Amino acid sequence: MGRVAIVGAGPCGLSSLRSFSQAEENGVQIPEIVCFEKQSDWGGMWNYNWRTGVDEFGEPVHSSMYRHLWANAPKECLEYADYSFDQHFKKSIPSFLPRETIRHYIVGRANKSNVRQYIRFNCVVRYIEFDQDDARFTLRYTELITGEDKLEHFDYIVVAIGHFAVPNMPHFDGIDRFIGRVIHSHDFRDARQFTGQRILVVGGGLSAEDIALQTYKFGAKSVTISYRTKSFNYNWPLEIEELPLLNRIAGNVVHFKDGSKRIIDAIILCTGYKHHFPFLTKDLQLVTANRLYPSQLYKGIFFKRQPKLAYLGMPKFYYSLPFFDAQAWFLRDVILGRILLPNAEECSKDMKTWREREKRLNGSFEGIDFQIEYARELLDATDYPHVDLDAAAAMFKSSQRHKQKNILEFRDKLFTSSLTGTNAVALPKGLRWIDAKEEEILYTD
Amino acid sequence: MGRVAIVGAGPCGLSSLRSFSQAEENGVQIPEIVCFEKQSDWGGMWNYNWRTGVDEFGEPVHSSMYRHLWANAPKECLEYADYSFDQHFKKSIPSFLPRETIRHYIVGRANKSNVRQYIRFNCVVRYIEFDQDDARFTLRYTELITGEDKLEHFDYIVVAIGHFAVPNMPHFDGIDRFIGRVIHSHDFRDARQFTGQRILVVGGGLSAEDIALQTYKFGAKSVTISYRTKSFNYNWPLEIEELPLLNRIAGNVVHFKDGSKRIIDAIILCTGYKHHFPFLTKDLQLVTANRLYPSQLYKGIFFKRQPKLAYLGMPKFYYSLPFFDAQAWFLRDVILGRILLPNAEECSKDMKTWREREKRLNGSFEGIDFQIEYARELLDATDYPHVDLDAAAAMFKSSQRHKQKNILEFRDKLFTSSLTGTNAVALPKGLRWIDAKEEEILYTD
Repeated sequence: MGRVAIVGAGPCGLSSLRSFSQAEENGVQIPEIVCFEKQSDWGGMWNYNWRTGVDEFGEPVHSSMYRHLWANAPKECLEYADYSFDQHFKKSIPSFLPRETIRHYIVGRANKSNVRQYIRFNCVVRYIEFDQDDARFTLRYTELITGEDKLEHFDYIVVAIGHFAVPNMPHFDGIDRFIGRVIHSHDFRDARQFTGQRILVVGGGLSAEDIALQTYKFGAKSVTISYRTKSFNYNWPLEIEELPLLNRIAGNVVHFKDGSKRIIDAIILCTGYKHHFPFLTKDLQLVTANRLYPSQLYKGIFFKRQPKLAYLGMPKFYYSLPFFDAQAWFLRDVILGRILLPNAEECSKDMKTWREREKRLNGSFEGIDFQIEYARELLDATDYPHVDLDAAAAMFKSSQRHKQKNILEFRDKLFTSSLTGTNAVALPKGLRWIDAKEEEILYTD
Repeated sequence: MGRVAIVGAGPCGLSSLRSFSQAEENGVQIPEIVCFEKQSDWGGMWNYNWRTGVDEFGEPVHSSMYRHLWANAPKECLEYADYSFDQHFKKSIPSFLPRETIRHYIVGRANKSNVRQYIRFNCVVRYIEFDQDDARFTLRYTELITGEDKLEHFDYIVVAIGHFAVPNMPHFDGIDRFIGRVIHSHDFRDARQFTGQRILVVGGGLSAEDIALQTYKFGAKSVTISYRTKSFNYNWPLEIEELPLLNRIAGNVVHFKDGSKRIIDAIILCTGYKHHFPFLTKDLQLVTANRLYPSQLYKGIFFKRQPKLAYLGMPKFYYSLPFFDAQAWFLRDVILGRILLPNAEECSKDMKTWREREKRLNGSFEGIDFQIEYARELLDATDYPHVDLDAAAAMFKSSQRHKQKNILEFRDKLFTSSLTGTNAVALPKGLRWIDAKEEEILYTD
């Protein structure tokens, strides 16, 4: 089977580790695994970091987590099939959860899986190349605490570093002379830093939507969202407005394409992230936009030119934790020899079919269905416990409808677990999300 | 002579390039030179960058430059002996200059030296190791625009990346839960972002001093400087106070070691920078505090274990541009074979002598004299044009006295060039530094 390197101990890396530990519990022999993690703890993006820019070792800070983030999907869509919320929290809890509660759950399964032994913390991977003669990878990494550089060889590489850590930060005319603060959402930490200010949020994705909402919730004077292609059209409160893309900035005045202008105190660029893999030789780097079915990846996992290189968690996802499990279990079974990859031609054909299907998608509901079908194909091929995918799809759509109806209240809705049948309960003392302004670390005692 | 790689095209890299171009102008054959520069232009730290965190390629932003920075020493202490301020500006200008004017001068000499041909812009050096068999260095770099990784071999490496780009950012109890903004001085850009706020500046060095002054100048409500070892004891305006080190933060209240506490809106950590060389194998990395005579470097330049590896600009410096020239000319002459390095034992002895001398220094005036003597030793060994080092030392001291007397006015003082005899003139229209609040780009048309 050879040696397997997993790069990253966030949700995807932990899903991969769990997939192997589950096989081992069932008496299967597993390969030698080394997981390299740059941070000092597991949890990946879910580790809040007060730092921005570079960390204590001079490495770019991974975290894009902000203090008051709550998940934007009900927990019933995120439930690991082998580790229910009931099992972890021992009681019924709400459907929408703050960051620390989600992290507690992810780490809870990891602890139970006994996989920490595989992880080398404070180790950053610097360089990976494939050696044709040897038919294996050379991986160079730095132990950040000692500063030692080390080389190791691996038969499989699993890239699980996520794709929300390296900002895409476009330039706008005049931004270099803007008086106020300019940050990317990657560096957004505490919404209370913007209380009383006139905020410009640039972007049309989930970061823009949620950071607009956060800054409003914590008392921004006004929030202007500037979109490139289309507006959200939510039922925003009066303090939030949407305008088309800015075209220039002069002093503290921002001018938009429709001719309107606004005085702005701070700009938050919610302009997305790069799929960024500078530690791989260029021929091994996945190059993709954030999309449901990245090209170059067979089953969304195996790098076409070199299938012993796998990427986890690279598609744009509605569906997260169990979806990462689906990818991880499928990958594990390929490494264990339980699933055989077809030849290159068959792979191409399969990828083409999915890509054609992706192209025809219209709207987020069809996107959800697409991703659910993709997950189903992976899950059907493995021994991962049963997941009610149709229920998940229905809950995602239901939640989107709630959001469209009232963006201030969709996180107060309650769902039922399709795994355990447990009904979610409301926040303590009838609290609503919009009023929950403490740094809530709920249910984690 | 072999091939020479210069890493960085900031002031030190440009001094090195100029040293070779001067030799070439004099009919000397020079080695093949390649200068690798991560940024898209030369000037190093003097290039203002509106970005913080990572750049458009996902690489850590080099710049620590802020919009309203003015040099903290009179230009008469920074004059290149082969390129006077008169030659560049064609008229007499003030002694203290804003950033863009300094940059204009540095770049002016570089342009005149015809050295741009040697520089590969947007190229970041990833890895350098010394191959014992080959007796040369292998250097791997990435062309950021194409994403291509490339390998080259060199006989000499000149590290000229500076040491003000990678923040040293200590943790304080409660800082992860502080409500307001926390940045390192590396990410400080426009003082007007802090107008009306209660600022905590942590640190006892030049960044702390100047950022306290900047935020005061641009209307901070109050500035508290928290020092670890000793206070500046300047004649601060009423809005600036000094307190000992903070020991914890609770919400927006900062507690200090002397028992006092302050409500704070934003924390600026002016806690210095790391000498940080992750692209070199550990055995080649200089490890040093910011000091006048770093250990491991013979003549403050040549890495003791491997003298074909040179570091420029690594000492703590009072004296900058001509000091970089002094190092660069000496290094050039070693590479050209004009100066022979003594054997290891002699080197150690020389380093020990300087270090002993450094240990006995008391106060900044003795530090200035030490650095001037060190520069004199380098300059005396080369054909660098005459510099009146005693005049430079006297001006440094004079300026320090001005600062001690009135920190708000020391930048209004005028000096005389020891190179050309030209007297500096006051700012236009009788402007004083404290009132100069535009983004001054003076004399650069």
